[in-house]
This record gives sequence, structure tokens and C-alpha cells, in this order.
Amino acid sequence: MADVSDRAGDDGSRPALARRIAQVQPFLAMDVLAAAGAKERAGESIVHMEVGQPSAPAPRPVIEAARAALDHGRIGYTDALGIAPLRERIAGHYRDAYGLSIAPDRVVVTTGSSAGFVLAFLALFDRGASVAISAPGYPAYRNILAALDLAALDVPLRAQDGWRLTADAIAEAAGAGPLAGILAMSPANPSGTMIDGAGLASLGRLCRERGLWFVSDEIYHGLTYGEPADTALRHHDDAIVINSFSKYYCMTGWRIGWVVVPERLVRPIERLAQNLYISPPYLSQVAAVAAFDATEELEAVKADYARARSLLLSELPGLGITEIHPADGAFYLYADVARFTNDSIAFCRRMLDEAGVAATPGLDFDPLEGSHHLRLSFAGGEEVCREAVRRLRGFLR
Amino acid sequence: MADVSDRAGDDGSRPALARRIAQVQPFLAMDVLAAAGAKERAGESIVHMEVGQPSAPAPRPVIEAARAALDHGRIGYTDALGIAPLRERIAGHYRDAYGLSIAPDRVVVTTGSSAGFVLAFLALFDRGASVAISAPGYPAYRNILAALDLAALDVPLRAQDGWRLTADAIAEAAGAGPLAGILAMSPANPSGTMIDGAGLASLGRLCRERGLWFVSDEIYHGLTYGEPADTALRHHDDAIVINSFSKYYCMTGWRIGWVVVPERLVRPIERLAQNLYISPPYLSQVAAVAAFDATEELEAVKADYARARSLLLSELPGLGITEIHPADGAFYLYADVARFTNDSIAFCRRMLDEAGVAATPGLDFDPLEGSHHLRLSFAGGEEVCREAVRRLRGFLR
Repeated sequence: MADVSDRAGDDGSRPALARRIAQVQPFLAMDVLAAAGAKERAGESIVHMEVGQPSAPAPRPVIEAARAALDHGRIGYTDALGIAPLRERIAGHYRDAYGLSIAPDRVVVTTGSSAGFVLAFLALFDRGASVAISAPGYPAYRNILAALDLAALDVPLRAQDGWRLTADAIAEAAGAGPLAGILAMSPANPSGTMIDGAGLASLGRLCRERGLWFVSDEIYHGLTYGEPADTALRHHDDAIVINSFSKYYCMTGWRIGWVVVPERLVRPIERLAQNLYISPPYLSQVAAVAAFDATEELEAVKADYARARSLLLSELPGLGITEIHPADGAFYLYADVARFTNDSIAFCRRMLDEAGVAATPGLDFDPLEGSHHLRLSFAGGEEVCREAVRRLRGFLR
Repeated sequence: MADVSDRAGDDGSRPALARRIAQVQPFLAMDVLAAAGAKERAGESIVHMEVGQPSAPAPRPVIEAARAALDHGRIGYTDALGIAPLRERIAGHYRDAYGLSIAPDRVVVTTGSSAGFVLAFLALFDRGASVAISAPGYPAYRNILAALDLAALDVPLRAQDGWRLTADAIAEAAGAGPLAGILAMSPANPSGTMIDGAGLASLGRLCRERGLWFVSDEIYHGLTYGEPADTALRHHDDAIVINSFSKYYCMTGWRIGWVVVPERLVRPIERLAQNLYISPPYLSQVAAVAAFDATEELEAVKADYARARSLLLSELPGLGITEIHPADGAFYLYADVARFTNDSIAFCRRMLDEAGVAATPGLDFDPLEGSHHLRLSFAGGEEVCREAVRRLRGFLR
């Protein structure tokens, strides 16, 4: 962290960096990715289980829509809230997938879910406000909150509860302290755990009772292996729902997502978006409209994830990885590897060096219990996972 | 502003919006654009002088590079700081255009200059810090600062000084008060005024003397009508230079830009970018590499702006618009219309209604003197401006 100690500068005339910089942590997954990349460039074969992105390309109708826009479109700024056809199509998706009627005006198109979080946090929370997040959970939550001078309240989840975020767990973690909002994710990263309708309803009740904002990250919706995922919108009118085309729709590099907001948030978010983003990328917006026409192709990709998940769940216990929540959704398994290590960073490094398998240390997701957990992504599909099992069999022996 | 009064909610259980929302102003230009669009949909012919975007499409090599990436590329996440070929090409641009050697590592690719400002402000300034900005100036500066709980210190510029931002003007505006940084823009929006090498050097001296950050917005570089624009990097090693492919390179809707930062800022900005953006859009990055191969095409577009500028500068005085700074660069003229109005919003509305010419009220750029100014964009080129002059001749009589 030489850059942090450098804050003061070595020359009186050089101003210091902002203090928040010391609070924003790097992703350990990125270090794993960099190390894996270096090995590949040196000719080694690496099995990637560290990445949270589909190995499948964007579906054909998406590519074709982008190509048509390149041929004929004027690739200019759009309304800050996104092009009307995309907002309408997303609203239609709530009708088709959830049977909910959502006005297109309430749909805000964003530059990935990342922009959704920034816009929501800035619109909802004053500086210093406390927002409940899960541990384990997606590391960017904590870091975006820190970057915006907001406080993360860790809600410790437990493996024996299936890593499920509950209203009781939030109430217990908050105690009598101040709380401004909660952030729930279902299916969750890294555990794949879903919150069912009753669970979402009870989170909604907690928010109404305590006057909290309910932010629901639904980026892994569509990627479920049993029941479909339910949306917070069904259980809490005032919910802010964040989603993206990156996961189910295989459009990571396009940087395109959306947020559904209560009516009274539309204009405030529009103003923030005008100033902070101007508009989401044009080609990605036009292409995303076509993503809803690619269901057959996307379901085939999901079927490969499902086979990969089954393979891992049946093979890993035989290798000694017995403590795994059987992910309801998303494309990760989160495993307790306490019998092998209490230093997940060192363990992942050895796994990469000795077995050529890249995985993410649990410390990315949970500052405490993450030391004996790791996350294995099966977004690479069945064949990648089969090879991973083969390699891990030797390594874990 | 019903949304602001709505902060408290009409139901005890509904939480309030963040207080900052009331500080973030909408762009008046957007209202003009919306009104103009409504008229066009009703069949009226509108001359657009309100928009800050080139009417020319992205250059051919850019489109071709995007098409090739659609055909062959995997459109995935990239390094948070951007793909290496683009960072190297941008670094090469500093050698070619300015004769400066900039390490590619110091180039941060961003999702438009918008992301550049957010990243820079978060990395440099603690909450409440004061940043000097010009009045008149680009309205998003003030709003991004407000959104991030930072304070804008207005530095009033004067028409008789050619709207030039100087170290003296900043020192006078700051007085003995606290100041953390300055934001300079050359060529400037809305005036087109450039700061020459001596001016930049003196801003750099001020920053060194007072321990201030020097942020230089160089988004209109390349679009100059006399001398080329000089960069703050030549005069202040520690400068943060923000730029974009939106203006000279005609790539607005692609949302792609860059920042050159001092070495000690690279890692902190990388961490912020990982969390707040993940990465800039892939297609736009690949396409932007090719923008540097389109000089002939882009210079032809610029020649059209130059003709449009000359036309307006020779014709407008005859219509009674005599107080115009002859823009050194960018594609705007900023005019004092005090002899016609002291309510630039009403004046622009009438101009749109009666002459079918859309322009931006000065109040977007300057909360005080903007009431009797307006900004005319000549980004539409010579023919658009000729028609505007024809219509304004009747209207202003």
C-alpha cells in the first residue's frame, strides 16, 4: 500500500490524496486474475474459476442489433435515463417474468449495475449514513459505500442458515444504532443463496417499520437452478431494484444495466445521471433491447451452468470440500476449506501455482470468516469444471 | 421541483431522499432539447444550436474497428484502467501532439470524461473540500461537486478579460478561505477561451505555492481556430488532465475518455475504478484506438466548424448580437444579449417558439451574469448556422 503511505507526498508543495482512498480496498480476485494471466502468457494452462463473467459471448440478436446500429445509427448521447424502447422493454420484462406492472418511466437505464449503485446511494443516503450489507457479500458494495463517505454495517450470515440474509439478522447487527437502508442480494454472490418471497416480505416490513430504504440487487436473476427468483418489487412498493445485462444476458463488457425506482426518485436520479454519466453507452442500449429476444440461446448457456453446478456438487465432497451451500442461483459455489487452510489468500495462490486452478479467496467477500473460505465460479461451464475437478483431485490429496 | 419538496415523503414509513439532491441542478439545455424535440415531432423545423455534440458521425476507422470487434472479439470486462493498446495509443498522442513523453501507465481510460471527474474528485478531495471553478463554466462541474459533498468556489470571469481564468482571479475569489484544488478548462465551455502556456504556468505556480490540486479539463483540445491548445502537463508535473473522445473525435454516444494522472494516483484511481465502474465499455475502447487514424476525416469536420464560426462572427453583429468573444476553440459562441433581455430562459424559449432556433440560456453556465447571456453551438456546421442566421434576422429585428 505504498500509495497510501504516499498520501502526504514527499514534497511540501504536493497536495495529499483524499483520506477515503485508504478505505477502498482492491479486489483480491483481480490479483488472482493478474497472476493467472501472467502464467498463461508464460505458456501454462490455467483453469479459470475466479471470474464472475460468463464464458459465453453475447447472444446473436444482441450482436446483430449492435451491427445494425453501427451501419445506420447515429451514435450520440441519449436521454440520461436511457432510450425509450429499452425502458419499455425492461418494463415489459417485469410483466413477462414476474407478472408485475411497472411503468417504463420508473426504469432507469444505467452504465452497468455499478452506476446503479452509485446513483441509488447518492440519491438515498446522506454522508455518514449506515447501510446494512451481508458478510459474505459482493466486495464492491463496501468499497462504493466507502468511496461515497457512507458506512457499511456488516450483517454476519451463517453457513448453517444457508447464508440467508434475514430481517432478524439485520435487526441484531444494527441494535439500537442508526441505520438508513439495507442492501439485499438474491441470488447472492458468493453463496448463490436466494431469499424467497416470505423473506423479501419480511425485509420489506423491517424497512417500513424502521423507515429504511430497501435496495435489492437482482443481478443474478434468471440464473437459478430450482425455483425462479422473486423480486423485492412484489413485496415492497418503495424498493430500489438494481439489475444488469452482464450475467444472465452475457453482456459484461457492454456495461449496461438498469434500476427500477419509486416514482419520486425518477427526477432526482435523472439529474444525478445527467451530471455524473450524461447517458449510458448508445450501442449497448440498442443491443440490450435485443437481449430479450435471445431466450433460447441464453437458456442453453444456463443449462451448461446447471450441469457444471451438478458436477461440482457431486465431485467436490469426494475431494474433501464438503462444506458447500448448494447454490440456488448465480454461478458460484462458496466453500468452507477450514480443513485445508486458515489463510485463503495463500491457499488460492498455492492452488494456482500447483494445480493451475484459479479461485477467489473468501477474504474478498468476508473480512472475518473469509480466511477459510473460497469462491469457485462455474461460469466457465461443465467442461472447465470437469478439468478443475481433475486437477484439484491431485492437489487436495 | 416537486421531487425536492417530496423529500420527507407523505407517509411516515417512507424514508427521505438524500439532502444533496436539492443541490444538484438540472441542465436547462436539456429542457430546451426536450422542447425542441417536441416541436420537431409536431412537424416543426428546428435549428439546433443548443447541443454540445458534433453532428458528424464517428469516423470510419472507428466504426470499422467496432465492427471487427463485434465479429471476432469477446466483449468482456477489461482492466479497470483500460486496455493496454488504448493506453499506449493515448500516451503516443501526447508525444505526437504535444511533444511530451507520458508513460502509458499514467493513462487511465474512463467511461467518458464524466467518469474522469468523478474518479479524480474522489481521489483528490475529502468531503467539504473547496474546488475553484469558473463562472461561466460547464454546469456539470458544480453538480458533480455537489453530488460528492464537495464545495464549488465560483471564480467570476469577465468578458473584458476574454473570459480567461487566471491565477489572480482564483486568488482573489479564494481570499484567505480554504481551497483544495482548481479546475481549469481550455478551450472553455461556453466561451471557447483558451489559456496559453504562460497562463497555465501561472496556474501551476499558484497550485505549487498553495498546495492545490490542478485539474485541467482538455476535452476541447484539437478543436482550435488559431494556435493549438497547450496542455497543463507541460507546465505542472502533478496536473490531472481530463480528456475525451466525444468532441474532436466525434464519439459522444460511445462514452469513452481518459485521464492522465501523476504516478502516485494510478493505484488509488484503479481501486476506485474497479469498484465504481469495473471497466469502460469494451467496444468503445477498441474503437477509440482507431480514432487516432482518422485525422484527415476529423480535420474536415473541424474545417466545417471553422467556417460556421466565421459565418456567425461576421453575421451576428449585424443582427444586434455584438458582444461575443471570438472563441479560440471548442464549438460555441457565448454572447451577451443584455440589449434584448435580462431573462435568458424566457428569451431562449421565445427564440425557439418564434424563430425555431434552439440555444442554451446563459444561466446554465453562470448563476449570476447568465441571465443576459446565451450559448450558441456551431457544432452543426456551416449550413445549420447559415439557416440560424436567416431565422434570427427576422426574430431579432
